[in-house]
Amino acid sequence: MRAVIRRNGRLVVDDMAAPVPEAGQVLCRTLACGVCGSDLHALDHYDHMIELTERMGAASAMKKGADTVFGHEFCCEVIENGPGTAGRFKPGARVVSIPAVITAAGFETVGYSSRLPGGFAQSLVLTEALLLAAPNGLSSEEAALTEPLAVGEHAVAKAEPGEGQAYLVVGCGPVGLAVIAALKARGLGPVVACDFSPERRAAADRMGADRIVDPALVSPHASWGDFDVPASGAQGLIAAAQGRAVRRAVIFECVGAPGVLQSLALGAPPGTRIVVAGVCMQTDAIEPLAFAAKEIELRFVLGYSPDEFDASLNNLAEGATRYNGIITGVVGLDQTPAAFTRLQADKSQIKILVAPGA
Amino acid sequence: MRAVIRRNGRLVVDDMAAPVPEAGQVLCRTLACGVCGSDLHALDHYDHMIELTERMGAASAMKKGADTVFGHEFCCEVIENGPGTAGRFKPGARVVSIPAVITAAGFETVGYSSRLPGGFAQSLVLTEALLLAAPNGLSSEEAALTEPLAVGEHAVAKAEPGEGQAYLVVGCGPVGLAVIAALKARGLGPVVACDFSPERRAAADRMGADRIVDPALVSPHASWGDFDVPASGAQGLIAAAQGRAVRRAVIFECVGAPGVLQSLALGAPPGTRIVVAGVCMQTDAIEPLAFAAKEIELRFVLGYSPDEFDASLNNLAEGATRYNGIITGVVGLDQTPAAFTRLQADKSQIKILVAPGA
Repeated sequence: MRAVIRRNGRLVVDDMAAPVPEAGQVLCRTLACGVCGSDLHALDHYDHMIELTERMGAASAMKKGADTVFGHEFCCEVIENGPGTAGRFKPGARVVSIPAVITAAGFETVGYSSRLPGGFAQSLVLTEALLLAAPNGLSSEEAALTEPLAVGEHAVAKAEPGEGQAYLVVGCGPVGLAVIAALKARGLGPVVACDFSPERRAAADRMGADRIVDPALVSPHASWGDFDVPASGAQGLIAAAQGRAVRRAVIFECVGAPGVLQSLALGAPPGTRIVVAGVCMQTDAIEPLAFAAKEIELRFVLGYSPDEFDASLNNLAEGATRYNGIITGVVGLDQTPAAFTRLQADKSQIKILVAPGA
Repeated sequence: MRAVIRRNGRLVVDDMAAPVPEAGQVLCRTLACGVCGSDLHALDHYDHMIELTERMGAASAMKKGADTVFGHEFCCEVIENGPGTAGRFKPGARVVSIPAVITAAGFETVGYSSRLPGGFAQSLVLTEALLLAAPNGLSSEEAALTEPLAVGEHAVAKAEPGEGQAYLVVGCGPVGLAVIAALKARGLGPVVACDFSPERRAAADRMGADRIVDPALVSPHASWGDFDVPASGAQGLIAAAQGRAVRRAVIFECVGAPGVLQSLALGAPPGTRIVVAGVCMQTDAIEPLAFAAKEIELRFVLGYSPDEFDASLNNLAEGATRYNGIITGVVGLDQTPAAFTRLQADKSQIKILVAPGA
């Protein structure tokens, strides 16, 4: 089969053996698979990710020097039920799954493994028990958004949202937009969104953000004060001490670059909860005293639960979110390396999908 | 009056004008005042603290190049009620207070101000409305522990302690010991405590920690696994996925040195909540990916509420904690600069009190 392969630090399009389903697995044809910011990270920081995984005492499914096929945001078509399957899905059925399969050796990730191909290939194997049917009426491209939207659902759940809070989403790429979509699907607000890119600000508007800020013109922290959020620094402390009605500030960090956390701590109101959904691959510098002085809370989040993944698919199918509006391009396998380059450089792009049959 | 003054980067014992009470204030004689780790920090990082405060948009009460008298953990004797006071306390009454006074210009901190002296001086002014009586039977030295114990009460409250959690206290200086004392006063556990100093480990034992670890011999993370805390890394994730009964790990970071947070993230179980009570004055480096992979939560805490301060005094008076066992020395003003040096170098010392009349 044809696949986009990370090999020797770059992406190449080449032939490789198609995977063979083991017990309980299903062979699938990839219909659509989104390029995630983490894929861009993994291309550049491949060895670093392996090293960090091992330093944390876990085994990395990606191996140094080995070929790896990325792609973990997929919608597929069942080709063939493998040995020991129950036949829940007939060939031709369209399905999605969390990007993990159960193998004889345990759970294995899909999209960050040197043993199993991810979605940037013509076919992949998935575990029958983890498959969810893509509902009729939901396009394969939209169904492929289940995974990134689930990231937003999870980040919002981890924020413990509720009355008396106000939300600031910093960075309106696919993760930030998923957060806005998940907040608005729950009827939460006010939501302030900021991004340097006009196209991403327009997308935040489509997702339902209540206020959109260009951080080149206005500090996002200055932009939500009238939503009863305490001001940064002494004013905010005084307002809180005087018991004036104030909302708790909840910031979603959806950029994932060095320096963002420190900048947020310096500008944020006292007592801010920062949900860290952007994944910064580099070592970052913080001044703990700045975080302590305001009693900042950092909640690092990653992934989602199977239930959140399921809810995300339902929200897309039922039109509870406008997240399907984030797709800015669909390319074939041959154009995928160029799409990675474009996503790195051109922030008018948001979500590019790979359609391996295109 | 005599005072220990920070002047030109060092501590000197010199004469200075005694403070004069403004409206609502009381002139007091300092009976005992503890040396806090933050005082050691402030001696060395004075200009840096001022700069950071100003970068955060607040005015610093410490001024560059000005004399400053530290000391914010005090027990005092009322000398004279100032103008506009109600006479709640007669001269001779022993009192404690949160280290803040109300002035015509607003709240002013005591112990980190270039305008008002802190407790390392023979007298200071306090606000009558904020004074609490030191109960009969509680020595002035013990009453001076109200403030550091309140730091522990606050850190424990911010941890949202409860069923199904297990606690690791990293660093058994005055902050870590206050955390252990506050946890055990609430009947919480299991509590694992670790410190390189044998004297501090012995103090942790006196506070009631359930297990004491020398981190030079045993990783503290390895030492609480049998308290149903998931192991770090893959084993812990698998145990969690299999639904085995596990406690959530709550770590109190009470060291405040660069590298500690990163080290804790690498060793901690997935889902750990880290309450950051140690104040690291330097810029610190973290790898956000390590925190994200385990969904670590960081809660930076500082200070306490007036209610927590009040509860701390009551716990000391009623013997609900053994925190009065942390005092390792009492010195006069003339010996205070040497006591700072000793606390920096000799970790067998825990809490040294200054008795300005001694």
